[in-house]
Amino acid sequence: MVQETVTLEGHIIDSDVLRRVMAKIVETGGSFEIEEFRVGRTNEEPSFARLAVRAADPVALDRVLEALSYLGAASAVKDAHFAPAERDGILPDEFYSTTNLETFVRRAGTWETVRGQRMDCAIVARGGGLEGVKQRKVRAGEAVLLRGPGVRVRPEERARAASSFGFMSNDVSMEINKHVAIAAAARSLKESRAAGKRIVLVPGPAVIHSGGDAALIRLVQKGWVDVVLSGNAFAVHDLEKALLRTSLGVCQMSGRAVAGGSRNHLWAINAVNRAGGIARAVESGLITRGVMHALVTHEIPFVLAGSIRDDGPLVDVLPNVLEAQEAYIAALENAGACLMLASALHAIAVGNLIPASVRTVCVDMTEALPVKLGNRGTQHALGLVTDVGYFLERLSQELGA
Amino acid sequence: MVQETVTLEGHIIDSDVLRRVMAKIVETGGSFEIEEFRVGRTNEEPSFARLAVRAADPVALDRVLEALSYLGAASAVKDAHFAPAERDGILPDEFYSTTNLETFVRRAGTWETVRGQRMDCAIVARGGGLEGVKQRKVRAGEAVLLRGPGVRVRPEERARAASSFGFMSNDVSMEINKHVAIAAAARSLKESRAAGKRIVLVPGPAVIHSGGDAALIRLVQKGWVDVVLSGNAFAVHDLEKALLRTSLGVCQMSGRAVAGGSRNHLWAINAVNRAGGIARAVESGLITRGVMHALVTHEIPFVLAGSIRDDGPLVDVLPNVLEAQEAYIAALENAGACLMLASALHAIAVGNLIPASVRTVCVDMTEALPVKLGNRGTQHALGLVTDVGYFLERLSQELGA
Amino acid sequence: MVQETVTLEGHIIDSDVLRRVMAKIVETGGSFEIEEFRVGRTNEEPSFARLAVRAADPVALDRVLEALSYLGAASAVKDAHFAPAERDGILPDEFYSTTNLETFVRRAGTWETVRGQRMDCAIVARGGGLEGVKQRKVRAGEAVLLRGPGVRVRPEERARAASSFGFMSNDVSMEINKHVAIAAAARSLKESRAAGKRIVLVPGPAVIHSGGDAALIRLVQKGWVDVVLSGNAFAVHDLEKALLRTSLGVCQMSGRAVAGGSRNHLWAINAVNRAGGIARAVESGLITRGVMHALVTHEIPFVLAGSIRDDGPLVDVLPNVLEAQEAYIAALENAGACLMLASALHAIAVGNLIPASVRTVCVDMTEALPVKLGNRGTQHALGLVTDVGYFLERLSQELGA
Amino acid sequence: MVQETVTLEGHIIDSDVLRRVMAKIVETGGSFEIEEFRVGRTNEEPSFARLAVRAADPVALDRVLEALSYLGAASAVKDAHFAPAERDGILPDEFYSTTNLETFVRRAGTWETVRGQRMDCAIVARGGGLEGVKQRKVRAGEAVLLRGPGVRVRPEERARAASSFGFMSNDVSMEINKHVAIAAAARSLKESRAAGKRIVLVPGPAVIHSGGDAALIRLVQKGWVDVVLSGNAFAVHDLEKALLRTSLGVCQMSGRAVAGGSRNHLWAINAVNRAGGIARAVESGLITRGVMHALVTHEIPFVLAGSIRDDGPLVDVLPNVLEAQEAYIAALENAGACLMLASALHAIAVGNLIPASVRTVCVDMTEALPVKLGNRGTQHALGLVTDVGYFLERLSQELGA
Repeated sequence: MVQETVTLEGHIIDSDVLRRVMAKIVETGGSFEIEEFRVGRTNEEPSFARLAVRAADPVALDRVLEALSYLGAASAVKDAHFAPAERDGILPDEFYSTTNLETFVRRAGTWETVRGQRMDCAIVARGGGLEGVKQRKVRAGEAVLLRGPGVRVRPEERARAASSFGFMSNDVSMEINKHVAIAAAARSLKESRAAGKRIVLVPGPAVIHSGGDAALIRLVQKGWVDVVLSGNAFAVHDLEKALLRTSLGVCQMSGRAVAGGSRNHLWAINAVNRAGGIARAVESGLITRGVMHALVTHEIPFVLAGSIRDDGPLVDVLPNVLEAQEAYIAALENAGACLMLASALHAIAVGNLIPASVRTVCVDMTEALPVKLGNRGTQHALGLVTDVGYFLERLSQELGA
Repeated sequence: MVQETVTLEGHIIDSDVLRRVMAKIVETGGSFEIEEFRVGRTNEEPSFARLAVRAADPVALDRVLEALSYLGAASAVKDAHFAPAERDGILPDEFYSTTNLETFVRRAGTWETVRGQRMDCAIVARGGGLEGVKQRKVRAGEAVLLRGPGVRVRPEERARAASSFGFMSNDVSMEINKHVAIAAAARSLKESRAAGKRIVLVPGPAVIHSGGDAALIRLVQKGWVDVVLSGNAFAVHDLEKALLRTSLGVCQMSGRAVAGGSRNHLWAINAVNRAGGIARAVESGLITRGVMHALVTHEIPFVLAGSIRDDGPLVDVLPNVLEAQEAYIAALENAGACLMLASALHAIAVGNLIPASVRTVCVDMTEALPVKLGNRGTQHALGLVTDVGYFLERLSQELGA
Repeated sequence: MVQETVTLEGHIIDSDVLRRVMAKIVETGGSFEIEEFRVGRTNEEPSFARLAVRAADPVALDRVLEALSYLGAASAVKDAHFAPAERDGILPDEFYSTTNLETFVRRAGTWETVRGQRMDCAIVARGGGLEGVKQRKVRAGEAVLLRGPGVRVRPEERARAASSFGFMSNDVSMEINKHVAIAAAARSLKESRAAGKRIVLVPGPAVIHSGGDAALIRLVQKGWVDVVLSGNAFAVHDLEKALLRTSLGVCQMSGRAVAGGSRNHLWAINAVNRAGGIARAVESGLITRGVMHALVTHEIPFVLAGSIRDDGPLVDVLPNVLEAQEAYIAALENAGACLMLASALHAIAVGNLIPASVRTVCVDMTEALPVKLGNRGTQHALGLVTDVGYFLERLSQELGA
Repeated sequence: MVQETVTLEGHIIDSDVLRRVMAKIVETGGSFEIEEFRVGRTNEEPSFARLAVRAADPVALDRVLEALSYLGAASAVKDAHFAPAERDGILPDEFYSTTNLETFVRRAGTWETVRGQRMDCAIVARGGGLEGVKQRKVRAGEAVLLRGPGVRVRPEERARAASSFGFMSNDVSMEINKHVAIAAAARSLKESRAAGKRIVLVPGPAVIHSGGDAALIRLVQKGWVDVVLSGNAFAVHDLEKALLRTSLGVCQMSGRAVAGGSRNHLWAINAVNRAGGIARAVESGLITRGVMHALVTHEIPFVLAGSIRDDGPLVDVLPNVLEAQEAYIAALENAGACLMLASALHAIAVGNLIPASVRTVCVDMTEALPVKLGNRGTQHALGLVTDVGYFLERLSQELGA
């Protein structure tokens, strides 16, 4: 048996870190002894724990310690290890892979904060600092952080005082009072704005189908949306409705399918592309209403990522998904809150790109999407099972929009 | 090969009857020849078809003809056959089983209309007429209609002019403009009321959870609900909210679970039962708000059927489900429209008890319930996939409630 | 500010009890100071905590302490309070409401274990001991336990060693390897049998539709089912298939709907009722195959609860749901494992009646049912999102049946 | 009122064409008179109808006639009209938009068949013939077919003899016997192979999660898969499982999450990219098992389309979605059957690219995806609501793989 000492600090009981550390040690085949434990005596005081962690051999112990590092447990304080990237886009096998939590790395005896925090990145020494970088963007020879000593994350602490989302975070259910849940979402937008952070909207075409667009336009007009990340379908549904009053060929006034209706979809793309894209279609007076119109006239930036199922697409769409991912990353700078509205593809994409500190609400008609998001690491998203049209109408009421 | 002639009349093309007759003949192993066909030349004129139907032997032919009788095809005009019920609740094996369509039976050369039309009943000669009767209510010796000649149904004709539900009937999808769909539902309530028929509400507890109760109370106050069919849970959720402002122990103001919260549920039952039931709890001033309060003060009748999962139950609940079924049947007299709101158990129960002519809307969060209803014969229900709270709020706006 | 001291003992960190106690104090408006804390140094050693809990006034403090009692925290060691039931079925307002956890009550200085542990009951002094009793079964004058001092529950401890269900408990997702999940379910059945406990099956009609009945029959034959709790529909689907090879009128060989097919459903009920019920229909040779046949021939007891949506029903069905609930309770005696298979109504009913120590697996096609079960207190159920036919086929392979 | 005569021919009653034509006329505001009607007297004989269609003015009549052309109704026999594309990718506003049905265009008095039949294309005169072309691929000056006279489609005729899928086509429900449904799917694969057509597989990562990969590998080995269209995630899940025995970091042996597990996902991408892609990773001996291994060793082509949510991606992935769409189109040449397995994105993409004559089965856990596919024009897909692992295991049994 080999042994190493790890320490934990903070609200480690009520943030559930201590329990998860203990569980993780046992699951990964180790055992532990608690050598010291000082519990914060009141709501405000942090706690402290020192554990002796044991495993059968050094390799097994390394695996246990690595697992603990993702939970914020720091083992013997050594500097982190680095190795050069073999080629462009190829990492050394022992690379450290990031979470969406704030991360610290020890170099030359100092703990440095990593820039560009998002999940599933390598950490690379760049420009004097450390940066989270998607593996394909790592260049040959750059120093890549390895798993092992000298890495720590700060786990999300649910403060002892009740959180903004309160009862709901980590809960996914349709069985809640929607008024209350939507009020909580509204509160988090207000907090984000008060903190000078941006509000990101990730809408799917169901926003248009369902009739939620009117409320969304009001939210845009009142300044509740700072950036929109979506794809071709959302924009085309909106433009088709603006031009022809149909959505996927279904008349939005009568609910009836229009003869040869999916032609309307292509017609809208054709008309907007002829004008030279969405902004020009607005400027030229072709597009006079709708969500995209509101975004252009209020100068709210949007990024439309291409997908294999696109019709057209609009000339505004980025057909290369890697470029689209870069554009999403740039647009997510300084994000404070994120509303994911009935769009599985883009919700998961954005979940991959935001730190856990972004207040995230995922609205969908079933529990499946919020559960999936959680499985992919976006556990901080509040899953709200309701009609996206309802959500937007109530949200705009709550926000006075 | 044996052969028999059947005739079809009415809007047999646009009501899809002719196609289904042809398909049914082929599926059940027969073949046919069209001997005469006169198509209605305009929207208003009925069509007429006479088919020679053939099968391998008389038994096979009988099976084909029986199948056609459920589609309104009348074969050689003979009187219907009857046989006595063997014992109370035991039918002769060849009994005819009803659909939810209007049914005619030929006795002594005359076509008689069957009273009490609902699916899955036997037809029994009673009081000089013919009546649809649940099998357990048939008494020994009563004359029970057999399958074979002399039975006809009138298939639902979707008129050539667009129907009230229009695009939507038989469609189940979340991908429609909810405003349009809910406006159609509102229209069918108005038509029902204009025709002097009753509006039946079949709500589940999600109406209370989701915050849809405020809108429902307004609908009750404005006279848009004539009878409520539900169970213990719906009533208790509402009473708990009225008494304690929680629902299943979750505070409806803050969204937080209350300590020992499911106790609140039992407490509400205990308090109302102590008062002697819902009506007395309202009269005594214990219950001063909520949906049940509105029903009592507006003298809207309600039937609460017991179920195996009930807590309590309230003394108002009918614990015997067969008695509850009888009470539902009585309450459904003269129903013109039916709103099924997020309650699978009671929606299917009511679907079993109403004729296809009742305008039925089934609101639920997934396609599964409307699909199930259709599989069970309630194909005339409009399936609307949305949040029930949203539905009620928009519906009350549409109806000016 | 008033204050009281509470103590916690056991694996209070890894069973997540300590964190929940702290969270509950803050949520219910109190604050605390940790006066003593001894953490179990190894996997096996229990921990101990003593907290001073404070609130604004005695009433608020009572509310906090009551909340903590449901988490196993014992406050100042006093005897419990009792008050007589006012009338049959009417409790004193301050009644204590049970959870599905093992419960202890202090009388005359001694901690007594409560018999008949299930959620949402009153605790009544009966026959010298204490018993969990549904409120409607409490008789006038019986001593009913009140909330307040002298009550403790033993929270479910997830042992520090990995549990039988391991990774899965509290997880609901379709995104897992089904082979692994079903193997875990099989293991829990084996453990239950090894411990001399009974295996309870709660199947819905989808078991028959989906083609899972063949595997279920093998499980019955090999002794893996000790009691079946279900309703009319499950039995009728099975009997219809045994008699006519259809299920709700859909041929199980060809998949095609049979003409006038729902008649088959009624025909099967009629035939079995004529024979005098299921057991006699098997004995008389009418029913020669199927799940119900296997249950009768292997003398496995079953309880069929009535519901408002029943056709028929079969004479075996208990139409009074309160009697059915009693019959379920009797049948659940000594249950060790419970399989809930695609039946929302009966799954929730059984969840209400079993202690948390019963290993419970809930199989359904969406996350909605497992999430609902959890919301209703059956948090110990493993939610498995898959086709019930698949589950049964793999389970029977795992169990060598 | 203006009037024009249209004719219909074929199995216009049992293929439901006549009813839909009548409904469409009324919906689009016209009326009609049936001038001649000859019904096929037997199962085999085609029927013939000639209708006088009327509308208020010529523009309205055009709209009605256009709607009818999509249903196969031919109006006055004139040549089709064409106009040149304005610029690359910009169509004339009156362009005709294709369905997924076989289409004929009249030029110089002759009806020509359109090549490259798929929905939402323009029809362009190219190389002496006519071709369906995505709008962005139309070049400036090419002759583009306009809506109006001279266009016909051949509606899908469900033959009077029962179809291969039989009961199921257009039905979406979990309430069917899965054995029967999967046997029908197996039959359609056999028919496709017998007809010398290719079998296309469109799998999502759930195939790997759910444990269905073993059966899929057997199907590949036995020659039941001719081409695979998917994305990065499917391939990475499979490769991660081949290399590390985990899937998204969850151990496929124990079901437990591995510490820092999503790192495994990135590690697998890194290792395969280092080897130079999937084929080289197989050749070099890095990948020795799994679905991708089977595809490479059996020389089954695959196309992996990029998406905005991709990790990595693998160097095999096409990051430009328009190029990926072209690659899908090329791979779909001569497709006879298509299995869509739990992948919404790729299922809808492929639905957009195949003619209605391709036998298509869409397997998913809820009704939502099949319903969506139908809404987007892929109405010929058989929707099968079950676990994809179950589907693959039964399918491989049915096919002896």
